[in-house]
Amino acid sequence: MPILPQPLVRLVEALGRLPTVGPKTAMRMAVHLLGRPYTELEDFARTLLAARRHVGFCPECGFWSRQGERCAVCEDAGRTDETLLVVEAPQDVAAFERMGRFHGRYHVLGGLLSPLDGIEPEALRLGPLWERLKKGTTREVVLALDACAEGEATTLYLSRRIREVAPKVRVTRIAQGLPVGGDLEYADEATLLEALSGRRELGT
Amino acid sequence: MPILPQPLVRLVEALGRLPTVGPKTAMRMAVHLLGRPYTELEDFARTLLAARRHVGFCPECGFWSRQGERCAVCEDAGRTDETLLVVEAPQDVAAFERMGRFHGRYHVLGGLLSPLDGIEPEALRLGPLWERLKKGTTREVVLALDACAEGEATTLYLSRRIREVAPKVRVTRIAQGLPVGGDLEYADEATLLEALSGRRELGT
Repeated sequence: MPILPQPLVRLVEALGRLPTVGPKTAMRMAVHLLGRPYTELEDFARTLLAARRHVGFCPECGFWSRQGERCAVCEDAGRTDETLLVVEAPQDVAAFERMGRFHGRYHVLGGLLSPLDGIEPEALRLGPLWERLKKGTTREVVLALDACAEGEATTLYLSRRIREVAPKVRVTRIAQGLPVGGDLEYADEATLLEALSGRRELGT
Repeated sequence: MPILPQPLVRLVEALGRLPTVGPKTAMRMAVHLLGRPYTELEDFARTLLAARRHVGFCPECGFWSRQGERCAVCEDAGRTDETLLVVEAPQDVAAFERMGRFHGRYHVLGGLLSPLDGIEPEALRLGPLWERLKKGTTREVVLALDACAEGEATTLYLSRRIREVAPKVRVTRIAQGLPVGGDLEYADEATLLEALSGRRELGT
């Protein structure tokens, strides 16, 4: 819209590049920001750049950490090394931590295998995973990857490779089925099939 | 979540203060931003601060303009001075300009009357409105305020006052095609066009 002053147009465009933000939301955010004190926006800008500069990835597990340091999970002596939960991305670790009932360690792959997109095993953080398994403290690896084609391929690949690298380690995967609170009527066929074939005996 | 590095927590909190952004969206935005090059985030920060510094309000109509300058609508010699569209906020002008079928001028009140919240006529940009009407070029004032209680009160107040200040000027309001309780800023272009063309003469 040529009637808007150029600096405002540029702000709306920049906000519109954020995920989930369409043009109307971008405009609403811009209006909100223009109404805030200048010092508050300076704080926001500083916070943004500080996060980009100081947040890195844990050299051990690949989760977010202070740049160059190990993450809070790896540093926590109160967790068990016996169970290793393998996920695709740092935000998956955050999701499990919100659940708050897993007390083992994590390993972030940094992606999923996708040969069509050129994502081969070399592109994943597998070297550090083999190093960790060779320490001999891990008794179970839980694969917790997205239930998509790439997730399935990666799960299959990892289950085979882990058995080669660490034959004594138990390899499991998280259950697939009806989401809690999910409506059976609207579940897709693949989910229902997984839910049925993964059925468990009910205790008496 | 204490397991996240502090600079990331602060970024998520800052993003979560933006309108429409909840905690999960804030996290998703933060992850996106951490993945962008540092220089791109510096550009974003600069764009944000430049907008705050250089965007002001047109001294004539109250729409957004470059700080200290008249806006693009008031500067446009191709528009008619005969019709003056009165709105609450700059984003309402932007909405009518997206519709693209109004070729008169605007006047932004900067608020709506709300005695309970202490917003009396003195809090609105009325002085500049009377100045503009005294020039004698305006033949019609179109009141285009939100269809809420405050919008109705302001419409009523203005229709009376305009008749006192400029008795020869026709006073209309946009049609009640606007959904009751609806927010003018988010109306679609077709609804705005219906509302504008269906404007009615106000009874005395």
